Amino acid sequence: MTTDLFHPASQHVAEIVGIFVFAVTGALLAIRRGFDAVGIAVLALVTALGGGVLRDLVLNQSPAAFADLGYLATPFVAAAVTFFLHPALSRLMTVFTWFDAAGMALFCVTGTIKALLAGLGPLSAALLGVLTAVGGGVMRDLIAAEVPRLVRAEETLYSVPAFGGALAVVAMAAAGWLRPWNALIVAGTVFALRMLAVRFAWRAPVAWGTRRPPG
Amino acid sequence: MTTDLFHPASQHVAEIVGIFVFAVTGALLAIRRGFDAVGIAVLALVTALGGGVLRDLVLNQSPAAFADLGYLATPFVAAAVTFFLHPALSRLMTVFTWFDAAGMALFCVTGTIKALLAGLGPLSAALLGVLTAVGGGVMRDLIAAEVPRLVRAEETLYSVPAFGGALAVVAMAAAGWLRPWNALIVAGTVFALRMLAVRFAWRAPVAWGTRRPPG
Amino acid sequence: MTTDLFHPASQHVAEIVGIFVFAVTGALLAIRRGFDAVGIAVLALVTALGGGVLRDLVLNQSPAAFADLGYLATPFVAAAVTFFLHPALSRLMTVFTWFDAAGMALFCVTGTIKALLAGLGPLSAALLGVLTAVGGGVMRDLIAAEVPRLVRAEETLYSVPAFGGALAVVAMAAAGWLRPWNALIVAGTVFALRMLAVRFAWRAPVAWGTRRPPG
Repeated sequence: MTTDLFHPASQHVAEIVGIFVFAVTGALLAIRRGFDAVGIAVLALVTALGGGVLRDLVLNQSPAAFADLGYLATPFVAAAVTFFLHPALSRLMTVFTWFDAAGMALFCVTGTIKALLAGLGPLSAALLGVLTAVGGGVMRDLIAAEVPRLVRAEETLYSVPAFGGALAVVAMAAAGWLRPWNALIVAGTVFALRMLAVRFAWRAPVAWGTRRPPG
Repeated sequence: MTTDLFHPASQHVAEIVGIFVFAVTGALLAIRRGFDAVGIAVLALVTALGGGVLRDLVLNQSPAAFADLGYLATPFVAAAVTFFLHPALSRLMTVFTWFDAAGMALFCVTGTIKALLAGLGPLSAALLGVLTAVGGGVMRDLIAAEVPRLVRAEETLYSVPAFGGALAVVAMAAAGWLRPWNALIVAGTVFALRMLAVRFAWRAPVAWGTRRPPG
Repeated sequence: MTTDLFHPASQHVAEIVGIFVFAVTGALLAIRRGFDAVGIAVLALVTALGGGVLRDLVLNQSPAAFADLGYLATPFVAAAVTFFLHPALSRLMTVFTWFDAAGMALFCVTGTIKALLAGLGPLSAALLGVLTAVGGGVMRDLIAAEVPRLVRAEETLYSVPAFGGALAVVAMAAAGWLRPWNALIVAGTVFALRMLAVRFAWRAPVAWGTRRPPG
């Protein structure tokens, strides 16, 4: 078992793309909030790498993000691109939603597998997979002084497909069925569920007997 | 010396109860802020397990919360119960204050002992004990976009009894007097001081020459 | 190579002074926000030690702050002094800006060297150096429920001189030129650039085509 769902080189390209897109969402939020170039770079870095760093800290490992120049330099490139091209990028948000969903699906699956390889139990591994996928976004929102999208009732489902995919990975691992192509099918399903949630405005329920606050 | 103040099985039950109550306070805050089911589960998890995870990260150990299914599943159960029964639970807040104080007292003592066992010095160990007890609540408040109760002038004493108890534990350890029943007496005293602080509205002073802001 | 730029004893004194000044800025913010004595102590601790603790967690080492009583006790002393003398300290803010710049310059250089010694690559080490210098301030602002100064467009340059100095350290290390007196020159330059940024109101640019929000 390995965290490589694709051929290692393809996997690296896919991860760099995911990091780039996560970084752009951080940079765009920084611009919308009126932060300066430092703030744009910081939110790009934190959004793109924060989830993986949190996962590796919990696994008591040196963060992978600090061991690969490609992981570390990509958010700076994304920040620079967004600094100049943010009006165009803002208009591309529909495209970004697709890439963001793909990055989330990839990271929740690879994060879960990495946690399983480190010897964690099923529920722990699944939660760390979700943390990998959503942790950077939570840190981004906290630094931007916004309530994290993760917990807001007006947002469409994001962590629920991630959690479902992470549970599918641990179930397949327990059954001895975890293979790269199986894991890829899970990631594809997570991606599809996320896009369906966006398309049909699927949301998590609010507490029994309460009403959803106006978005 | 061990972190078990009680018989191991009783200790585990006491910790699960403490985790459950901490998780309910997180879930109730999420509902009050209008978060959805994801937000309720996230705040339950973070509140209940955040302090211990922070302690273990500082101790450079794998977080205990991720190694025990009981620790990890309890916040989900608490979130589900609170999702449906929050009106009743909100009315039970007086009872919850008691259990919350008991959980805080237990975790500050066991957290300090765990830090001492890991070889930390007295002040370090005491601060980690307090971090164990209050860290989850701070993370809960940050994600809920509220100023942490820990630092608010209108809140009654919470971390001060915890810090006193932690210092008592390190003093007893230095004197060679640390035994389970001694540590239990410290935890009981922390609990009593916290309840007295609630009953008589004991508060920490505000800076010399300033006035307490209206609550 | 060592993280000691000065004679070890002088280095320790310089670090304690830096920690004291960082702690005072945390305590003053707590007082301005109306927090109580607990909040003053918490913000003093977090501001002074947070950056170094984050760096050590990423390096997968036990935080140095918890292994040295001087590091750990200094923020408490700073909090107690500020509790009583805050009106005088607030008037000394010009002096504090100098000491804060000196602490920042020292910590970004020593943080980068510590990361290099731990085997990190150049960009990783430079980013950890910056994290050492600015991480505590970000945690301080988050707990105080303010947008971190690090990302605000109205603030003068702070992390940019730190990043420049960190990059200079890794360049000198790569060239085999890193000596204590060289590193001291870098720290002095970082300090000078920070003070020039304050004096002449140098700021990072905001995103292309946007206007700086009113401060």
